Amino acid sequence: MDKVFRINMTNLTTCIEEVPEQWIGLGGRALTSTIVAAEVPPLCHPLGSDNILVFAPGLLSGTAAAQSGRMSCGAKSPLTGGIKESNSGGTTAQQFARMGIKAMIIEGLPAADTFYSLHVTMDGVTIEEESSLLGKGNFAVIEDQVAKKGKKIGVMTIGLAGELKMAAANISVKDPDGKIRSHGQGGMGAVMGSKKIKFITVDSEGSPAVPLVDADKFKASARVFAKTLLDHPVSGEGLPTYGTNVLVNILNEVGGLPTHNFRFGQFDGQGFEYETIWGLGANCCIDNLDQIAEADSIMDDVGVDSIETAVTIGVAMEAGIIPFGDGEGMLRLLRDELAKGTPLGRIIGSGAGLLGKIYGVTRVPVVKNQAIPAYDPRSVKGIGITYATSPMGADHTAGYTIASNILGVGEFVDPLSKVGQVELSRNLQIATAAIDSTGMCIFIAFPALDDAACLPALIDMINARFGTELSGDDVTELGKKVMRLEHQFNIDAGLNNKHDRLPEFFKTDPLPPHNAVWDFTDDEIDEFWNF
Amino acid sequence: MDKVFRINMTNLTTCIEEVPEQWIGLGGRALTSTIVAAEVPPLCHPLGSDNILVFAPGLLSGTAAAQSGRMSCGAKSPLTGGIKESNSGGTTAQQFARMGIKAMIIEGLPAADTFYSLHVTMDGVTIEEESSLLGKGNFAVIEDQVAKKGKKIGVMTIGLAGELKMAAANISVKDPDGKIRSHGQGGMGAVMGSKKIKFITVDSEGSPAVPLVDADKFKASARVFAKTLLDHPVSGEGLPTYGTNVLVNILNEVGGLPTHNFRFGQFDGQGFEYETIWGLGANCCIDNLDQIAEADSIMDDVGVDSIETAVTIGVAMEAGIIPFGDGEGMLRLLRDELAKGTPLGRIIGSGAGLLGKIYGVTRVPVVKNQAIPAYDPRSVKGIGITYATSPMGADHTAGYTIASNILGVGEFVDPLSKVGQVELSRNLQIATAAIDSTGMCIFIAFPALDDAACLPALIDMINARFGTELSGDDVTELGKKVMRLEHQFNIDAGLNNKHDRLPEFFKTDPLPPHNAVWDFTDDEIDEFWNF
Repeated sequence: MDKVFRINMTNLTTCIEEVPEQWIGLGGRALTSTIVAAEVPPLCHPLGSDNILVFAPGLLSGTAAAQSGRMSCGAKSPLTGGIKESNSGGTTAQQFARMGIKAMIIEGLPAADTFYSLHVTMDGVTIEEESSLLGKGNFAVIEDQVAKKGKKIGVMTIGLAGELKMAAANISVKDPDGKIRSHGQGGMGAVMGSKKIKFITVDSEGSPAVPLVDADKFKASARVFAKTLLDHPVSGEGLPTYGTNVLVNILNEVGGLPTHNFRFGQFDGQGFEYETIWGLGANCCIDNLDQIAEADSIMDDVGVDSIETAVTIGVAMEAGIIPFGDGEGMLRLLRDELAKGTPLGRIIGSGAGLLGKIYGVTRVPVVKNQAIPAYDPRSVKGIGITYATSPMGADHTAGYTIASNILGVGEFVDPLSKVGQVELSRNLQIATAAIDSTGMCIFIAFPALDDAACLPALIDMINARFGTELSGDDVTELGKKVMRLEHQFNIDAGLNNKHDRLPEFFKTDPLPPHNAVWDFTDDEIDEFWNF
Repeated sequence: MDKVFRINMTNLTTCIEEVPEQWIGLGGRALTSTIVAAEVPPLCHPLGSDNILVFAPGLLSGTAAAQSGRMSCGAKSPLTGGIKESNSGGTTAQQFARMGIKAMIIEGLPAADTFYSLHVTMDGVTIEEESSLLGKGNFAVIEDQVAKKGKKIGVMTIGLAGELKMAAANISVKDPDGKIRSHGQGGMGAVMGSKKIKFITVDSEGSPAVPLVDADKFKASARVFAKTLLDHPVSGEGLPTYGTNVLVNILNEVGGLPTHNFRFGQFDGQGFEYETIWGLGANCCIDNLDQIAEADSIMDDVGVDSIETAVTIGVAMEAGIIPFGDGEGMLRLLRDELAKGTPLGRIIGSGAGLLGKIYGVTRVPVVKNQAIPAYDPRSVKGIGITYATSPMGADHTAGYTIASNILGVGEFVDPLSKVGQVELSRNLQIATAAIDSTGMCIFIAFPALDDAACLPALIDMINARFGTELSGDDVTELGKKVMRLEHQFNIDAGLNNKHDRLPEFFKTDPLPPHNAVWDFTDDEIDEFWNF
C-alpha cells in the first residue's frame, strides 16, 4: 500500500502516514496541488514556516509506460505568490513510485541556522546535518553523493541560489545520464532553501515493481500508447532528432520568436540547441553558442531556472547593466555576480519582475511575476491566453497552444487571429492538468491531439494499473478540478483577474515582422474561467 | 478664475485649461485622487507613459489660515501599485493657490533620454533641457536655483533616487527656512524621474492675494480656528516645544515603539529628534544621534523617504547585510551604496518589501509593500487597522489613531484591546481624507477631536473663501467619497481585501513588554469598508 512520508523541519521529526481517502486516486500535479491547497494558508509567507514543499510521482510513474517519469513538486511560490506545480524528469519519480511513496511532504522551518540533508529509503526518511557541501554547486553535490552512495542513488539538490532563497532558484534532479533536470520556474529551490535542506537522496534499493491490477491489459495498452508516440512526426521524429530546437526554428520562421527583450519576432543569429537557450540567444541577441553553453552550465550549477534567468538578463540589458548582445558581460553577470551571491547577483536570481522594479524598467515580460518564455504572445495569440490565465504564471507548458497555432497538430488555429484561442488554451490547460497528474511528459500532447488511439490507451493504462474504470470524461473532469482548485488558491492568496493580464507593452508595441499587438479585451480573457 | 496647468512630456507641450465643473469644489487630496482615478488606467505601469503626476494645493492654501500650506501630490504608486496621495509642507501650495493653479498635471514620457526642468509662472509652464544638475543632490539643486532665480523661488526636485526611479524616491520641496520637506512615501520621486523631470521651479511673482468671498467672516473664523490650535496641549505646546519627539517618547513608554526590526516595543537608547528617525534609532538599534542626523541629511539629499528607507535598513540588518546597531555600517549603506546607485543601493532605494524579497527575509514590516512606521500595531491596535486598510498602504497619517489610543485625545480607546478600533480608524481616515483636501496639516486633528469649536471654524473658513454653504456632514461625505474613490482605484489595479492584511509575523510573534499579538480576524478587518 502506498504511504505518505512527512518531514517536519521545525522539530526535525519524520513519520509515515496512511494515504487519506480523498488522495487515493490522485498523483502528480493533482496530488501536489490538492495537498498545497489543503495544508498551506494562502496568505502565508512562501518562505515562512507555514509553507510546505511536496513531491509526488505521477499515477503511471514507475511503470513501463513511455514518458511516465515526471515528478511533481508543489508549494506556494515565492516568485508568483500563488500555487505552483513544477515537474521534472530524472529518476526520482520512478523511485518514489516503486517505493510506494505516494507523496513526500516537508513542512516547518528549523529554528537554528543549520542546514540539513534528507535520505529517503523504503523505511522512511532520516535527517542529517550538512555543512561540507554548503555553498557548493549542484554538480559537486551530485558527484559527492554518487561517490558516497553509489551510481543508482537519486539526488534532488539546490545550489547557492536555493540556499540564498532566490526566487528563481530551482531544484536540480540527477538524471540517469549524469545530466541535470530541474523543477524549474517558480522558486521551488528557494522554498527548499528556506527549509534548510541542501539535498535529498533517494535509495530505492529493494523496492518491488509497481503493482499492476491487470498486467496484460497494461502491457497491451502501453504498446498502443508507445506506438502513437513513435508514429507522430513531432514526438516520433522531430523531437528525438533535433531536440526542442525544432520548435525554435519554426517559431523564428513564423515571426513569434521573442528577440531583443521581446522587441522583434525574428532573430538572424545562429541556431540553438535547447528551447530555454532562446532566452540568451534571440532574446539577448547573443549569437555565440559557446557562451550560451557555458551560461547554461553555470545556471545548472548555481541552480536557477534558465527561462527565468535568461529573461532576467534581457531585462538587465534593457536596464543598461550590459548592452544587448554582450555575451562576455552576460557570463560575467552569471559567474561573478549570481554565482557569488553579490547584491547584483541576488537581484538577477530574483527574476525578471524584481530586476525590472529595482531598475525602473517598464518593458518587463512577466505574468504574475513569472518570466514569459520563448513564444511571443502577440504573434502566437493562443499562448498569450495561456500565459495570462495559467494559475502558474507565464508558463508555456501549462497549455501548449504552439501545437495547434504553429505546428498544426490537432486542428490548426491561426496564431495571428483572436478567433478560437481562448477555447484552445482552455482545452489544452485542462488536458495538461490531467496529463501532469499521470507523470507523463507534455510532449505526449502531440499524438494525443492527432491520434485517436493515444488518449484511450493512456486511460487504459491507468485503469489497468489501479483497477479503476475511468473514462475520458473522468480525466477531463480531473483536469478541470485541478485547475479550479489552483485558481481558488490564488484568489485566496490575493491574485485575481487583474493578474490575468499581459504587460502593457504587448498592447502598445507592434511586433515585427507581422506588427501584431496583443489585442484581447479584459472580458475576452476572463471568458477563460467559464467552465 | 482658477486654471489647470497641463504638461505633456511626450510632446513637450504645455497648456492651460479651464477647471472642469466636477473638480470645482475640490482641492488637495480630493482633487489629486479624483484626477488620478479619472485619467490613469489602473493597470498601467506606474513608470510608463499612462501614469500622471498631479499637484494640487488645498482648498485653504494661500490664505492666512493656520497650517493650510500642504501641497498634495498624486499618481499611481510604483511602491504600492495603488493610488497615492502624498502631501508636503513648503511654499509651493501657497504659491499655486495665489497663482490660481487649481492643479498641475504632468502626463506622458519623453522618448529621448534627455532630462528636463519645468518653470511655472502665472503665464504657464516652460520646459527646458537640463543636464548640469543631473546626478546632483537636492541641496545642490535648491542652492543652484535660488542663486539663479532668487530666494523666493519655489523648488520641487528629485535627487539621484528619483532619477534612477527607485520606489522609495520622494519629491523634495524647498521650505522657507532652506530646509527640505518632502512628498514622502510611495515613490512620487520615481514617477517624476520616469517623466524625466529633474526639478520644477515656481515663480509666483505678481500673484494676487487669494480671493475671499466673505473676508470678514473668513478672518473671524480663522481667529477661532487658530485659537483652538494654540489652546490644545498637543498642537499648542507639545509639538511646538518638542517636535514629534514628544510622540516617540510616549510610544516608548507605552511599549508601542517598534524596536530591532519590530521585535520589541521599547528601546533603551537615547531620545530622538524626529518621528522618522525612530526607524534608524529604535528599529535599527542605533543610539548615536550624530550618525542618525548624518543619515537624515544623506536621505534628504539623495531624495528617499526616511520612513521607508529606515525600515529598509532594519530589514537589511535582519538579512545580515550589516548587524543591528551598526551605525557606521548604516551610513556606509546610505553613502557608498544608495547615494552611488550601486546594485545594493538600488535595492535599498526600492524599499523594505523588495529588499525582503531579494534577500529571502520573512520579517518584513510592510502593507501593500509600503513600510510600516513608528507605531507597533500589536500594542497600538487602532493604528494597525489604519495600516491594513488605508488605500495608501501602511501610513500612520491616513488615520492617526495614536491620538485616541495613546494621547487620549477625543475619546480614549484602549490600544491593547480590539474593541472600538475599526470604528476609530474608519472615522479618522474619513476625517483625514477631508482634512487632506483642505491643505491642512494633520496635526489639526488634535484640537479637532477635543475642541467643539475647531471643525466648525474650519468649515466656516472654506465657506467664507468660496461662498459655499458646506455643513459638517458635507465634509464627512467628501471624506467618504475620497476614500471610496481611492479604494475602487486599488481594486481596479488588482488590490483587494487580501492586501488589507498585516504581515504574518505580527500574528505569531508576541511583542514585549505586553506580549501583544495582532489578533484581528480577516472578517473584523473587512468590516472597515462598511460605510
